[in-house]
Amino acid sequence: MTAFPEVNSILFEGPESRNPLAFRYYDADEMVEGKSMRDHLRFSVVYWHTFRGTGADPFGPGTALRPWEDGTDSVENAQNRARVAFEFIEKLGAPFYAFHDRDVAPEGATLAESNKNLDAVAKVLKEEQDRTGIQLLWGTANMFSNPRFMHGAATSPNSEAFAYAAGQVKHAMEVTHELGGQGYTFWGGREGYQNLWNTDMKRELDHLAKFLHMAVDHAKKIGFQGQFYIEPKPKEPTKHQYDSDAAACLNFLRQYDLIDHLKLNLETNHATLAGHTMQHELETAGAAGALGSVDANTGDMLLGWDTDQFPTDIYLTSQCMYSILKYGGLNPGGVNFDAKVRRESFEPIDLFYAHIGGMDAFARGLKIAAAMRADGKLEGLLSERYASWDDGLGAEIEAGKHTLESLSEVMLKQGDIAGNVSGRQEMLENLINTYI
Amino acid sequence: MTAFPEVNSILFEGPESRNPLAFRYYDADEMVEGKSMRDHLRFSVVYWHTFRGTGADPFGPGTALRPWEDGTDSVENAQNRARVAFEFIEKLGAPFYAFHDRDVAPEGATLAESNKNLDAVAKVLKEEQDRTGIQLLWGTANMFSNPRFMHGAATSPNSEAFAYAAGQVKHAMEVTHELGGQGYTFWGGREGYQNLWNTDMKRELDHLAKFLHMAVDHAKKIGFQGQFYIEPKPKEPTKHQYDSDAAACLNFLRQYDLIDHLKLNLETNHATLAGHTMQHELETAGAAGALGSVDANTGDMLLGWDTDQFPTDIYLTSQCMYSILKYGGLNPGGVNFDAKVRRESFEPIDLFYAHIGGMDAFARGLKIAAAMRADGKLEGLLSERYASWDDGLGAEIEAGKHTLESLSEVMLKQGDIAGNVSGRQEMLENLINTYI
Amino acid sequence: MTAFPEVNSILFEGPESRNPLAFRYYDADEMVEGKSMRDHLRFSVVYWHTFRGTGADPFGPGTALRPWEDGTDSVENAQNRARVAFEFIEKLGAPFYAFHDRDVAPEGATLAESNKNLDAVAKVLKEEQDRTGIQLLWGTANMFSNPRFMHGAATSPNSEAFAYAAGQVKHAMEVTHELGGQGYTFWGGREGYQNLWNTDMKRELDHLAKFLHMAVDHAKKIGFQGQFYIEPKPKEPTKHQYDSDAAACLNFLRQYDLIDHLKLNLETNHATLAGHTMQHELETAGAAGALGSVDANTGDMLLGWDTDQFPTDIYLTSQCMYSILKYGGLNPGGVNFDAKVRRESFEPIDLFYAHIGGMDAFARGLKIAAAMRADGKLEGLLSERYASWDDGLGAEIEAGKHTLESLSEVMLKQGDIAGNVSGRQEMLENLINTYI
Amino acid sequence: MTAFPEVNSILFEGPESRNPLAFRYYDADEMVEGKSMRDHLRFSVVYWHTFRGTGADPFGPGTALRPWEDGTDSVENAQNRARVAFEFIEKLGAPFYAFHDRDVAPEGATLAESNKNLDAVAKVLKEEQDRTGIQLLWGTANMFSNPRFMHGAATSPNSEAFAYAAGQVKHAMEVTHELGGQGYTFWGGREGYQNLWNTDMKRELDHLAKFLHMAVDHAKKIGFQGQFYIEPKPKEPTKHQYDSDAAACLNFLRQYDLIDHLKLNLETNHATLAGHTMQHELETAGAAGALGSVDANTGDMLLGWDTDQFPTDIYLTSQCMYSILKYGGLNPGGVNFDAKVRRESFEPIDLFYAHIGGMDAFARGLKIAAAMRADGKLEGLLSERYASWDDGLGAEIEAGKHTLESLSEVMLKQGDIAGNVSGRQEMLENLINTYI
Ligand SMILES: [Co+2]
Ligand SMILES: [Co+2]
Ligand SMILES: [Co+2]
Ligand SMILES: [Co+2]
Ligand SMILES: [Co+2]
Ligand SMILES: [Co+2]
Ligand SMILES: [Co+2]
Ligand SMILES: [Co+2]
Repeated sequence: MTAFPEVNSILFEGPESRNPLAFRYYDADEMVEGKSMRDHLRFSVVYWHTFRGTGADPFGPGTALRPWEDGTDSVENAQNRARVAFEFIEKLGAPFYAFHDRDVAPEGATLAESNKNLDAVAKVLKEEQDRTGIQLLWGTANMFSNPRFMHGAATSPNSEAFAYAAGQVKHAMEVTHELGGQGYTFWGGREGYQNLWNTDMKRELDHLAKFLHMAVDHAKKIGFQGQFYIEPKPKEPTKHQYDSDAAACLNFLRQYDLIDHLKLNLETNHATLAGHTMQHELETAGAAGALGSVDANTGDMLLGWDTDQFPTDIYLTSQCMYSILKYGGLNPGGVNFDAKVRRESFEPIDLFYAHIGGMDAFARGLKIAAAMRADGKLEGLLSERYASWDDGLGAEIEAGKHTLESLSEVMLKQGDIAGNVSGRQEMLENLINTYI
Repeated sequence: MTAFPEVNSILFEGPESRNPLAFRYYDADEMVEGKSMRDHLRFSVVYWHTFRGTGADPFGPGTALRPWEDGTDSVENAQNRARVAFEFIEKLGAPFYAFHDRDVAPEGATLAESNKNLDAVAKVLKEEQDRTGIQLLWGTANMFSNPRFMHGAATSPNSEAFAYAAGQVKHAMEVTHELGGQGYTFWGGREGYQNLWNTDMKRELDHLAKFLHMAVDHAKKIGFQGQFYIEPKPKEPTKHQYDSDAAACLNFLRQYDLIDHLKLNLETNHATLAGHTMQHELETAGAAGALGSVDANTGDMLLGWDTDQFPTDIYLTSQCMYSILKYGGLNPGGVNFDAKVRRESFEPIDLFYAHIGGMDAFARGLKIAAAMRADGKLEGLLSERYASWDDGLGAEIEAGKHTLESLSEVMLKQGDIAGNVSGRQEMLENLINTYI
Repeated sequence: MTAFPEVNSILFEGPESRNPLAFRYYDADEMVEGKSMRDHLRFSVVYWHTFRGTGADPFGPGTALRPWEDGTDSVENAQNRARVAFEFIEKLGAPFYAFHDRDVAPEGATLAESNKNLDAVAKVLKEEQDRTGIQLLWGTANMFSNPRFMHGAATSPNSEAFAYAAGQVKHAMEVTHELGGQGYTFWGGREGYQNLWNTDMKRELDHLAKFLHMAVDHAKKIGFQGQFYIEPKPKEPTKHQYDSDAAACLNFLRQYDLIDHLKLNLETNHATLAGHTMQHELETAGAAGALGSVDANTGDMLLGWDTDQFPTDIYLTSQCMYSILKYGGLNPGGVNFDAKVRRESFEPIDLFYAHIGGMDAFARGLKIAAAMRADGKLEGLLSERYASWDDGLGAEIEAGKHTLESLSEVMLKQGDIAGNVSGRQEMLENLINTYI
Repeated sequence: MTAFPEVNSILFEGPESRNPLAFRYYDADEMVEGKSMRDHLRFSVVYWHTFRGTGADPFGPGTALRPWEDGTDSVENAQNRARVAFEFIEKLGAPFYAFHDRDVAPEGATLAESNKNLDAVAKVLKEEQDRTGIQLLWGTANMFSNPRFMHGAATSPNSEAFAYAAGQVKHAMEVTHELGGQGYTFWGGREGYQNLWNTDMKRELDHLAKFLHMAVDHAKKIGFQGQFYIEPKPKEPTKHQYDSDAAACLNFLRQYDLIDHLKLNLETNHATLAGHTMQHELETAGAAGALGSVDANTGDMLLGWDTDQFPTDIYLTSQCMYSILKYGGLNPGGVNFDAKVRRESFEPIDLFYAHIGGMDAFARGLKIAAAMRADGKLEGLLSERYASWDDGLGAEIEAGKHTLESLSEVMLKQGDIAGNVSGRQEMLENLINTYI
């Protein structure tokens, strides 16, 4: 039985190919900077959008044709879907996937039943992992959909919601561990507020920190050594989410002594909703030693919600890969397509088109970034720009040899600075275009 | 000689007054929660907009009529302007003012000359302070206007710009100290980037931290005990300013061990440019023990630049004062009108209208906030909302008695949470309207 | 049987009341400018949010407790819901309601069946209208939820979708007519595009115009004399909706000779998503003689999607009512609460709180606007501002007596203009606060 | 004497060139779709940014080094600057330029003197045009900088400002005519409002229309047959500019019978400030037969003001050129670089880098767009998508053979539509990438 009879393995055919079901740039075995594209990019397919997305939006129900679905919320249907998912990922040639507990298995009437359902589906996931060699990039728990989490999970004013969330994370983490998951992600779907007037922000943040410490402790206890991630997003579904951007997350992690335990899982569309470029968020995380993994997608800069579109802009993917290479690559993280097809792209084949486009865009971005690095012009211009800090006065300042007084003396003597050099931003933008 | 012959002291006439040159709400001596309005609000007039603003914008030169200006950039003109400023502040009845070094005195050809100019004008400021009792809320150095700071000051790729800035801050801080300034503010006007491709963000942030540590050290050395502030703003003039919002500032301060030395000076228009409400920024700072001072203004929510309009929205001022009262008031901070009249409001009298409106709006906000607190309904609803954390399971969790495992046990037994209570957001918004 | 046993009729109790289930400002019979509040405000409850909203959002399913629902999509359930709706509207004391065809009755397997379902429920609506005196402000057809309309209805690339939509509007208009509806609204839910590359905008707009002309013709044929409205919205669900704002709608109506047949139904949240204030949209429509009706709600200015919150800001409602009074009131339009309770306000009683707050805010806005008009200060300042156009040169220009040449002559002689007067924006904002 | 001794003519060197002072794509004589690149692109250099920009921003004065400036506002300096401008444009190889009256010549104390100054500089412009063959794309009058226009020009509440503006436009149009200008542009720099409370929008729009009719009449009188343009922009400097976007302009032009006299001059950064893509604005204008000319630049999508950056994004320029080719090209319009170098790019050479990058990006966009058209895949997909309108039911509807009733009959019989086809948005985006 096959869910995608019209599609065989997606193969690399080279830039001249016009076959929409082939890669033009992603050649898994091609070596770039001494490492295969497969290992650089560590592509991951997300279970939620790709296998649970229906095309519903706030103005209409789902449109997606998914012939393998039997229309029930049964464990059997979920198990069958898992097999379909692996057929898709295998044909696509992505080495990883990621899931929420509630994506893969139906929620039961009790926590116990939900755990049991998850175990039953995880068994199939394990079989399929073993069969295909596809690995789990990271797991996570959905603690934002069920109405019990309407006011948040770890930050709920209802302490029982916290307790339930704790039970849920315990099990999701254990299942992730059993499946050999290389990471575990926290996206605080409703950890935030709708209205400050009914919110005790400080108390809620204290609870969130406590929750994460419990998770860290539990990982240690069960021997789970995967990387923990926190994923920034500024708003949606809540008016304000506490993990609003990279800086807000880092501030929280520092304040609550969690900075050594979690890295950031950065998403392009979340970056732009926060008013930042993805490049900014990558650099912010990278500079703080906290660049963990990437949710690869793109938003529409003129729309104010999370459209989670597949990334196809070569400028964007080049920027991403340049920063990723600069900070040593993503591992155990990956390039995880937290992206969905449009409501109108409702056929199964659209899932292939979408992922192929995203993978090719990132492969192309990787090659562009590597070319920039090999060329060295950009880096050379940067070094030159900061040269005044490499010796003389600049080096003394960096070495801690100066005070306001000593520097005042220097400048009182000199009168004024000797002059600046042009920022050359336009020339730089032209230079970038020589690699595109 | 008077610059404002048509205006006498602005007096409190009560809510029924329709005199546009009187206060309807601000009665300096009225007691609210056991403290005078004067001491709650600590109003401050800014030198830059009010005495140096010309009405220029990117599409046209200044329009402002300022008959006292002689059109030169001389020290004499600056000294005369200082006297005019104090006439204005005194007639308005504001107890404080704030300035940048380059607002009050002209920049000279050398740092030495600039220092001398500043000293010459500071002498007049001191005289006027003594004459009127008006005090300096905080001083600061303008390190963003002069072309030498085009690439930043403490974060410039040019180490000489750093050195010059150090000399400038040294003197500005010393003048602030001599004038009895109660604080000193850092707004990183061009501390950020225009283009990430030519920027070494990490190195620049290291330099910024070093700079602030030097400032802290110098304050100790000269015995300046005023409060240091850092003022968040996300963009403008640069594409990205490092001090982008309260959370980003706190993250930076924590990372570089500066958190004990600086508090935040929050501005409404900067909050909204960062995608936050002012209430959010106040609560973020308050919860972190870092609420320092307030730059009182408002932006236009549909415009994407810093319009620095005078605040007149009662909802806004009520929110501000509610948070300020909640966190114990602003002292040594104040309510500083970092606000400017529109280009078309070009007459001196418009400066009075503008400040009166802002002061009345804040006085009204103070009374509304105090009424909310006296009534206790809001606080009651909040306590009730978090009651599940005050005993039983919630209290145990807060006390550190639980793990993921123990909570999982609780919920496996219970099956699910007992239920949530309505968020009642609409009722709360109606309740707010009962105080307006 | 009652659905809201805990609520009796909502009564006016006056501004001092703290009863959250009473009006503090809305006194239906109070006369303002010679007309009752009831007749000024013509409040309308929307069927879709208030009786079909579930609290679902893109990140979670519904939360709303609606004990009267039997969980089926049957006609019987729909009929029972209609009775509940009228109980609610009656207790609230709103004189109008509005609906989409698919809100009130379930969609059938065929157009014929859908029509039959609608007729069956319309029968109950008619009975309830007769029983209570509540009237239908306007009807409309939902042509955006069903997947058949995924690419649009009148603007679908699929001509059958156009045909189906035509059939649907025919019936919805006829039912509206039977129920004595005072208007009929077109909101082009998916009339726009997701992607310009696959869109023939010109051809789609031609189709939309043709569709509206058919509707106008059909109304004439059946004798329906209600007002047609078009409702602007810039985006969501599509990336760009053709009816993006008031100006875009007017342009379209003019281009296709529809300007005499449709007025605008303006919504606050749609205005702000388009980058405009609601006051701007009201003035744009009013100045064009096209101010039809108002969808009263508010967005969150920091969120980029249509939150459709209940309006409680007195500044907003005062601006709305000032423009509405200025342009002669809304009739046959009304103040229609196209607004929904938050997902967390999940109890039936929250529906009452929400509507009471909105009605009170608009009643208060009406009184404030009337006070501004009675006072005349604002209007006086405006007249004075344009006085130069009332005689002399200005009047000559308005009378068409001048050319570039003749005006050039005037100014060559005069040399320059005599001067401007201050815009006094800050004084005006303070003046507004004297009415709040 | 040369102002740019270090630069000779910028030559085409081909894509492999890494010479930053050469074109890689713009080869003026290369034929594309049977026309030279020169004639397709009709590049134009703007006088205001390139020769009058100083690098000043709201937070600091100018930085630009322009050694040819003598620092005075004299006519002689202006004449010399004109010669420098032509040296620049000639070396760059752009065939056109554009100016405001006040860019090229200093404002005098009276209108007469200003006219005289303009004539004196226009004489030099004429000489330089004759010497170089560079032509005037369009002229315009700056009616937004001088304080006399603080409240607007044609829409000022001060009728004298209107009269002065009339005199100014008369002269600017005549000078444009004398210089053989191919067009004349109206950008309503302050034609809008800062505050609706002090604005009579309807009266102001009436005045604006009258003003434009006067201009049309004057052109006829003097025999000026250049194309009139109106340039949309939504905000900045005013809070709302009447010509906010393409649709608003078209609405205004239709309402006041000006639609046959003016086309649109579309600017990318203005499009995005209005919440639209440039592609949207081009298609809106094109579909209305009103696509006139293009102000080629780009904004920063995360900044809320008009940054007027040079366009370098190949996706953007490809979209622009695709629409331009589709609607028959720009003529007498052109691709006019209404763009400025960053404040930090302060050297004369940066002007070359910036223009070269923009020209190359547009040349590349032209070649990509032509390749898309030659290939025909995009157009094929589009035709296919609308095929249901080409015969059968769709064709009947387009031919006006249907009513709501007849279509209702069709669908009552058929029951429902036969189905939709996938929107294939992701496949389309991948297809676009095959051309990049
Ligand atoms: Co994500
Ligand atoms: Co997302
Ligand atoms: Co400030
Ligand atoms: Co500001
Ligand atoms: Co609506
Ligand atoms: Co809405
Ligand atoms: Co332009
Ligand atoms: Co522009």
